[in-house]
Amino acid sequence: MAVTIELLFNKPEFVKEIYVHSKLYKNDSYDFISNICAKRKIEIIENDRIFNVLSPKENCYVIGRFMKYNENVNKQNSNIVLVNPSNAGNLGTIIRSCKGFSIEDLIIIGESVDIFHPKVIRSSMGSIFSVKINCFETFKQYKEMFNNHNFYVFVLKTDNFLGYINFMHPFSLVFGNEADGLLDENKNYGKPVRINHSSKIDSLNLSNAVSIALYEVSKQNNI
Amino acid sequence: MAVTIELLFNKPEFVKEIYVHSKLYKNDSYDFISNICAKRKIEIIENDRIFNVLSPKENCYVIGRFMKYNENVNKQNSNIVLVNPSNAGNLGTIIRSCKGFSIEDLIIIGESVDIFHPKVIRSSMGSIFSVKINCFETFKQYKEMFNNHNFYVFVLKTDNFLGYINFMHPFSLVFGNEADGLLDENKNYGKPVRINHSSKIDSLNLSNAVSIALYEVSKQNNI
Repeated sequence: MAVTIELLFNKPEFVKEIYVHSKLYKNDSYDFISNICAKRKIEIIENDRIFNVLSPKENCYVIGRFMKYNENVNKQNSNIVLVNPSNAGNLGTIIRSCKGFSIEDLIIIGESVDIFHPKVIRSSMGSIFSVKINCFETFKQYKEMFNNHNFYVFVLKTDNFLGYINFMHPFSLVFGNEADGLLDENKNYGKPVRINHSSKIDSLNLSNAVSIALYEVSKQNNI
Repeated sequence: MAVTIELLFNKPEFVKEIYVHSKLYKNDSYDFISNICAKRKIEIIENDRIFNVLSPKENCYVIGRFMKYNENVNKQNSNIVLVNPSNAGNLGTIIRSCKGFSIEDLIIIGESVDIFHPKVIRSSMGSIFSVKINCFETFKQYKEMFNNHNFYVFVLKTDNFLGYINFMHPFSLVFGNEADGLLDENKNYGKPVRINHSSKIDSLNLSNAVSIALYEVSKQNNI
């Protein structure tokens, strides 16, 4: 239900209809849903069968159908840049961390998992409906358009450690793909930064690495 | 292959046999596997069919079968404590972060996802074979045995922010379940700590929260 509420609260204009299960306990959250649907003339359909087909989870009682949409992020805002992210769960939790640490603009470069994949939406806990996401074919195209940004490129080999760098706004924090990291051609596109971890692992999980960077940046901003 | 190498390198005594696919390119990594198998008298079986059954990934060419095992963690070591972790991917990436930030003892309290679930092993990238994991039925039992530890309990409501706390060794960093956080009865079991994030999200993903805490602790230790 929380995800559908995020959808209706942030992107009601893209919602086609809402499905509810007959077992739904119609509490205050449901009142919120029915009010916004009434105001926006969005149909609420009671239909149990669609839940058997679409939802593997037993405790899902509300489904929202919406149209995919595009948004443009603001050049003046700092953002996170993911090059070829391939794992839906990672992308979702990254979006959730972005929102949690108030960096609400996200850039995706090149081939990527579908940003509206159900797993992305679920693991974002609905944050996807309030974080702006812009896709670019190449890093070069992105960098030319955001030429006012300071670029920080997260790599495994450099002596510039996160925690000892002052990030200058507006910044782009750039992260490579889960399996391969950043291609060499992208590594020179900004100041290299490393999250200092032991050599006993090859790398951190992508979502964990991004979240650590977001945490560190948000701490700087609060000081 | 990397996961099987971690298994053979760290826990050869529990390996029953190794399966390889006929498509396996027998490079240096394979030499490592075949050497250790020869030394430990572990059988290597070429069998393509088992890959169709066990591995959904097309590029998997080595499988190791091993016996589940128990280990005891050391009371003198600081550790991470997870109460009722329920998501296999989270548990795996937490194990990977533990190893990356040199906290190699992990405690699981109460009901939990199977720590040897294939998804846990995969997302740990094989780190599970070198991080010690101890399970306890209740937090109370654990706390009585580790009465020399300083307990830090990660919660959503407190004014003690991560980044402004000196963690005293040996410590236990305690985290609740993905959906419910910590039960009230566990919240009083140590000093409360909060990872400061905006109120726009309910909470961070569990693996991200643990990784941020590990990062902060490891930074303190390096200073």
